[in-house]
Amino acid sequence: MALKWISVLLLIQFSCYFSSGSCGKVLVWPMEYSHWINMKTILDKLVSRGHEVTVLASSASILVDSSKSSAIKFEVYPTSLTKNDFENVFIKQITRWIYNCPKYTFWEYFSQVQEMLWNYGKCIKTFCEDVVSNKRLMTKLQESKFDVVLADAIAPCGELLAELLKVPFVYSLRFSPGYILEKHSGRLLFPPSYVPVAMSELSDQMTFVERVKNMIYMLYFDFWFQIFDLKNWDQFYSDVLGRPTTLFETMGKAEMWLFRNYWDFEFPRPILPNVDFVGGLHCKPAKPLPKEMEDFVQSSGENGIVVFSLGSMVSNITEERANVIASALAQIPQKVLWRFAGKKPNTLGSNTRLYKWLPQNDLLGHPKTKAFITHGGANGIYEAIYHGIPMVGIPLFAEQPDNIAHMKAKGAAVGVDFNTMSSTDLLNALKTVINDPFYKQNTMKLSRIHHDQPMKPLDRAVFWIEFVMRHKGAKHLRVAAHDLTWFQYHSLDVIGFLLTCVAAVIFIITKCCLFCFRKFVKTGNKEKKS
Amino acid sequence: MALKWISVLLLIQFSCYFSSGSCGKVLVWPMEYSHWINMKTILDKLVSRGHEVTVLASSASILVDSSKSSAIKFEVYPTSLTKNDFENVFIKQITRWIYNCPKYTFWEYFSQVQEMLWNYGKCIKTFCEDVVSNKRLMTKLQESKFDVVLADAIAPCGELLAELLKVPFVYSLRFSPGYILEKHSGRLLFPPSYVPVAMSELSDQMTFVERVKNMIYMLYFDFWFQIFDLKNWDQFYSDVLGRPTTLFETMGKAEMWLFRNYWDFEFPRPILPNVDFVGGLHCKPAKPLPKEMEDFVQSSGENGIVVFSLGSMVSNITEERANVIASALAQIPQKVLWRFAGKKPNTLGSNTRLYKWLPQNDLLGHPKTKAFITHGGANGIYEAIYHGIPMVGIPLFAEQPDNIAHMKAKGAAVGVDFNTMSSTDLLNALKTVINDPFYKQNTMKLSRIHHDQPMKPLDRAVFWIEFVMRHKGAKHLRVAAHDLTWFQYHSLDVIGFLLTCVAAVIFIITKCCLFCFRKFVKTGNKEKKS
Repeated sequence: MALKWISVLLLIQFSCYFSSGSCGKVLVWPMEYSHWINMKTILDKLVSRGHEVTVLASSASILVDSSKSSAIKFEVYPTSLTKNDFENVFIKQITRWIYNCPKYTFWEYFSQVQEMLWNYGKCIKTFCEDVVSNKRLMTKLQESKFDVVLADAIAPCGELLAELLKVPFVYSLRFSPGYILEKHSGRLLFPPSYVPVAMSELSDQMTFVERVKNMIYMLYFDFWFQIFDLKNWDQFYSDVLGRPTTLFETMGKAEMWLFRNYWDFEFPRPILPNVDFVGGLHCKPAKPLPKEMEDFVQSSGENGIVVFSLGSMVSNITEERANVIASALAQIPQKVLWRFAGKKPNTLGSNTRLYKWLPQNDLLGHPKTKAFITHGGANGIYEAIYHGIPMVGIPLFAEQPDNIAHMKAKGAAVGVDFNTMSSTDLLNALKTVINDPFYKQNTMKLSRIHHDQPMKPLDRAVFWIEFVMRHKGAKHLRVAAHDLTWFQYHSLDVIGFLLTCVAAVIFIITKCCLFCFRKFVKTGNKEKKS
Repeated sequence: MALKWISVLLLIQFSCYFSSGSCGKVLVWPMEYSHWINMKTILDKLVSRGHEVTVLASSASILVDSSKSSAIKFEVYPTSLTKNDFENVFIKQITRWIYNCPKYTFWEYFSQVQEMLWNYGKCIKTFCEDVVSNKRLMTKLQESKFDVVLADAIAPCGELLAELLKVPFVYSLRFSPGYILEKHSGRLLFPPSYVPVAMSELSDQMTFVERVKNMIYMLYFDFWFQIFDLKNWDQFYSDVLGRPTTLFETMGKAEMWLFRNYWDFEFPRPILPNVDFVGGLHCKPAKPLPKEMEDFVQSSGENGIVVFSLGSMVSNITEERANVIASALAQIPQKVLWRFAGKKPNTLGSNTRLYKWLPQNDLLGHPKTKAFITHGGANGIYEAIYHGIPMVGIPLFAEQPDNIAHMKAKGAAVGVDFNTMSSTDLLNALKTVINDPFYKQNTMKLSRIHHDQPMKPLDRAVFWIEFVMRHKGAKHLRVAAHDLTWFQYHSLDVIGFLLTCVAAVIFIITKCCLFCFRKFVKTGNKEKKS
């Protein structure tokens, strides 16, 4: 037994030393729900390669759970918020988003989105304040001598901790509304003529009207929408760091941005060298299902099964909506596995079983699976892409409508509206993706693209984190745009100077011509007079 | 013996089938000199993976030599040019470039560069015409059913052949002057505020004056400089393809662009998903030197050696320049190996040996090597980076001054001017890079970056060529910008429309206000009168 453990330990050490220099110490600033599920895959891999991974978890953490046995270390810090407070912020906002936002106009909708983000941002700022003002904790972190901070860019603070601890940091990010963080901190370029703004639900193939819409979205996000209460954040960062700075400036120091996306999901667009697309890094081959579930799946025969989940944040919906959905599901020949924690709908068919939790990846990878009904979360969509399962999208909030719009544009999904759909709408959508080979073919194409990358997404994510540890950064990948002010970046000073030069030349030439003309006319007149 | 051959064949087949589907057929449209040396590395690797590689070589080929034994197939086509004609085009132009161009003003210099490129382009067009008008050859190529065309983008025709043969194509490219091809065909973005224009000799850290200079370069290349006689090429492509098209449009159909560059050499800038940076793919560990050479190298003792080459295109220089150089070399304590085919200089020191050819990579990888005197060709610079050898740059033509400017900016080289340098200048430059640890440290840093990539450059190049064969293209990496006209791409129609809307709204509001004002004034006046 001892020998076995020694060999396991040796193997771990070996895997770390073999290709990545000595093992390192990673500090993690995580986000909740699907963000954590995704990041944990990276952390587990880092641990398996011998690195020491410490996650900063607040006492109000929801999914970032230190009680579960894991080789990951958790540094739990006390916070004034309770788990309930924090959970309520999400649940209240998501409920509002799902049931109210769709009724709003553009302006009202994004005002609501901004308000929700600010409320969420307030919680994150409280956590951040609770960490940086906790002297005992900060001393412990300083003494731990971390090699890198891995942070979710949508939950600021990781960059502040990295600055305070004087270590480089790497971001994981799915997206930010209107690509605000990617543009302002990451200095990425998004030409509005062919890159649809995040949350616009547009594709890269836009008509003139859609391009006008996209431009308006871009202007709105560039000049109006504020992702967080920046005035407050900027002041906070300046106070803590003891010098005038901003949130975006501090975020701009990221060594690498690991986007949870790839070109099977995203539309091709300009990128920068310190960006890698590691979407779907959590996907893996399916494991066998629990006995009862496998029996139910097998009972579907030739027709196969449909997997249905609205994600880790929504386990319940209104009775009316549940009945509409259940009635549609009852009419298909497939067996349905539905992740649902609410009251059993009256219209539930015998072909449908409710589960409080589903082994989603294992079900999507099952040979009997014909379709996936999804809210359009990025993790779920990637599992469907990985296993080549066409989707029916019922987007609910955040970037989900955008994700489903992407899948629709790529011919891998049909979308229905959660609030307005009838049973027939859902039924037709299901029949379409199951029976029309167009959807299966397209999803299989995406699947082939996903599986055929020079290196697996998870390996690349780990490579770049280890690279930053090995080289204490990745400055050679950082564009010099970070050193420029916004008007220098857009060459406004240079354009202004050149236009002034041109104007001056035109002015001088005009003056010279006028002078010559007057001289000539005057001389002519004098001669005439004489 | 038979068994050995069977196992070798099986191994080849296996390596090809194992990770890349079935083996494919690759048609190659190459360029001469260093371009060919670089591309041949890829072709050898493709052959070793079991692919069938056919190179189209003209009867006037210089280095693309079908007579040398190789597993690569050569399809030699007759052309009206002789090898001498073709070689002379290069030699004459390079001599003019080296000795005359440095005396010119900006305008004269780039006019000369354009003329040289047009002359070179004429030869390439002759070759291209000779291929596409050769019915027997075209039929043979059609029947060969190639899976992909691999072409050097700086020598057009590969894309035309790919279109005619209806197969996807992949480019290899070091650069084009002012990034014309990359911008117009590849749709890459080069913000002038931090991306120095190719051939501007600027770095990414620019002062205001340098940014003005860079903007002028950009405007010049965008609106004045023509890389080839485009009118002629566009007409030729339209005639051959039987529909109105342009050279740039046809080139824009490339599935992948493999740039012979990486961020150890290039300054970070925006890229696109169908671009990979595979610079230094030809580099490899040093092999042992020939006995005589090794003895000479060992005789250098503690002082070590200096390697000196002006590349594959320049083996001779004027007597005066040779003497200046030789006299500087004679004054250093190192032994010098100089690739030089001219008359032995009178000032040649006993520490310097002349060679008609040098095993450059093996010498740069030798532990005794202290410095590399180079013309600044990309292949040589990459070998120096790979082995971590600081450089003295004597740039001669093409992008060489730019390459040396990059190495200077990265602290890995000192540059001297070929035409104006004195012996002391060269001597001081050599002493600096050998004795100042700054240069060795920086070159070693570049070397570490080069060796620490997620995947080796050659493997990535091969991966993408095989990917294009497997999937018959890589459309998922192609930005939708290719489907837009130039004014749509720059959103000029959208901006125009929005400005018109704003103007119309202002106009209507003004009119309404005026109308109300008049009505009010009139009514007021009437009331007063009454």
